[in-house]
Amino acid sequence: MWHTIEQTIAEIPRGYSLETEQAVRARWDSLTKPRGSLGALELEVVRLAQIQNRAMPSVDRQCLYVFCGDHGVTAEGVSPYPSVVTREMVKNFVRGGAAINVLCRHFGIKTFVVDAGVGGPRLEGVLDRRIAEGTRSFLREAAMSREQAELSVAQGIELGRDAASHFDLAGVGEMGIGNSTSASALLCALTGATPAEAAGTGAGLDEAGLQRKRDVLSAALELHRAERDGMGALAAFGGFEIAMMAGFILGAASRRLPVVIDGFISGASFLVARTLCENIGDSVFFGHRSAELAHARLLQEVGARPLLDLGMRLGEGTGAAMGMGVLTSGVKLYHEMATFAEASVSDVKNEEAK
Amino acid sequence: MWHTIEQTIAEIPRGYSLETEQAVRARWDSLTKPRGSLGALELEVVRLAQIQNRAMPSVDRQCLYVFCGDHGVTAEGVSPYPSVVTREMVKNFVRGGAAINVLCRHFGIKTFVVDAGVGGPRLEGVLDRRIAEGTRSFLREAAMSREQAELSVAQGIELGRDAASHFDLAGVGEMGIGNSTSASALLCALTGATPAEAAGTGAGLDEAGLQRKRDVLSAALELHRAERDGMGALAAFGGFEIAMMAGFILGAASRRLPVVIDGFISGASFLVARTLCENIGDSVFFGHRSAELAHARLLQEVGARPLLDLGMRLGEGTGAAMGMGVLTSGVKLYHEMATFAEASVSDVKNEEAK
Repeated sequence: MWHTIEQTIAEIPRGYSLETEQAVRARWDSLTKPRGSLGALELEVVRLAQIQNRAMPSVDRQCLYVFCGDHGVTAEGVSPYPSVVTREMVKNFVRGGAAINVLCRHFGIKTFVVDAGVGGPRLEGVLDRRIAEGTRSFLREAAMSREQAELSVAQGIELGRDAASHFDLAGVGEMGIGNSTSASALLCALTGATPAEAAGTGAGLDEAGLQRKRDVLSAALELHRAERDGMGALAAFGGFEIAMMAGFILGAASRRLPVVIDGFISGASFLVARTLCENIGDSVFFGHRSAELAHARLLQEVGARPLLDLGMRLGEGTGAAMGMGVLTSGVKLYHEMATFAEASVSDVKNEEAK
Repeated sequence: MWHTIEQTIAEIPRGYSLETEQAVRARWDSLTKPRGSLGALELEVVRLAQIQNRAMPSVDRQCLYVFCGDHGVTAEGVSPYPSVVTREMVKNFVRGGAAINVLCRHFGIKTFVVDAGVGGPRLEGVLDRRIAEGTRSFLREAAMSREQAELSVAQGIELGRDAASHFDLAGVGEMGIGNSTSASALLCALTGATPAEAAGTGAGLDEAGLQRKRDVLSAALELHRAERDGMGALAAFGGFEIAMMAGFILGAASRRLPVVIDGFISGASFLVARTLCENIGDSVFFGHRSAELAHARLLQEVGARPLLDLGMRLGEGTGAAMGMGVLTSGVKLYHEMATFAEASVSDVKNEEAK
């Protein structure tokens, strides 16, 4: 497994073509609008082109993977929802009734539901990559073994590579009751944030619940204080879906498939991926800034400017899907707008040159 | 004309149904997601429902009006583009090659191009509401007569009322070389902002051009210092497209058609509309925050939180169209998500009630 991971990391492009960047900028500047006036849309199409390594990037075929898993730490009372909701929501995804289904239908994004480690009997209609029936409580012991962590990442890599054969743009999201606590622990372990900075209300904790979550985080960070590298922290704090999503990001990047990251928990996957590959940030987009407060800290830590800031905190990949919609608009403009020459519009630069 | 305007203002709803608001909130809370977790999307669908006065709002039929007009003040060197570009871009709109055409096709929005006062021979393929061939330079005299200002607003009202018969959601945008200078003058006249605060680089002024624009604004504000009400400032500073767009916003509101405002210049139209009807803000959405710096000031002045912040500064209604895309996603989620009961998902509130 470790070999797969190392090989994938070695295949991720370091730095992108300056020639592609110049070609995309030249085309943007030839279109009938003031230079630079599409702001982030122009910049993000440049990045898409660089990742795809072609001056006319495509987003025709889009997919979104929802990674699902259960968390032993829910036994410590860190979520207002019971663990069974993970399973219930997976069924909701498969039937097409969840928020992410509605958005993916609307945007023409093909949805995949990945069982990375949900509790209970095997589920129908999912990509079954289940590592175990949920993690162990990381307040008591490591959430998973190091071997399980590596297996999860390797499985994610396979999915990411496979997606790159069929799609032009991917989104990632997750479902897992308790997983905002894992994400907070990872933020602390990998960036030095404190539990007070890293813990938020997740799916809807009250004040007492938030305090309990912080106490659990403080105790768990002390218990696992030796685990401060990516794979070690992943094994210590989980979860399977976070690990698999980190693998997906790496696998996709190794095949030049751009990935749009969702919110706080997906962001924690990105943090893990970044400990394994320093320049992974060049291959991804951040869909939105979540209302979960620690997400702002995470985005700042990785120097990311998200596409949207709508106060969403639903997960599932909903922020990624919305961000994919923004990128799609940018690519449409880039492909379909008329040039100054085609439209016989006077360009300021031409005017000045007279 | 003044009678039409007054009557329209009288017809604009004051305050919205609490019953509708409660019905929409109850439906949001019945859907399979943590309460409130769709953030601004939930709040904006509540507002859409209130404006449309029905618990299941629709955005099936969408339109966008691009108001176009020329500005005498361009003679003072306040734009890097010559006036003829307004006319050239109108032709580009009619042929479907401009940014706004691409976005409207992508989002399924029907586009209307309104000639409110473009210079040169009559144009094909537009809604011809031309008041005159451009305004006069407001550095020398009033941009238009008070009668022309009222006629422009009345024409806009007619267009807004008409749109309400055929559409569920409208966007407004503009094209007019020089019109960011009019918008800046209106911001100063109507809010007390200084020329330094209100003037930006528009479609791409250099530092010397920006200083010239500020000087023109200072001198013009002194010349027209008596004009500090909406219609007076509109007549003093123009333009025809800004006036007509202000009328459109009022006419649409009087018929419960929600309007998405574009950027800085459309924002100036909203400012004018607000001087005529204090609570017009309840009937509109702000599509985005423009990169034109004074737009942030304008949004703060009217207490608006825009849907997007992508550093765009193109006009034409592009930010409005992007915002309409966000609202559409919200409405789709509201209509299509499964409820907790339908999906057999455990709701936290139900759990707590046990």
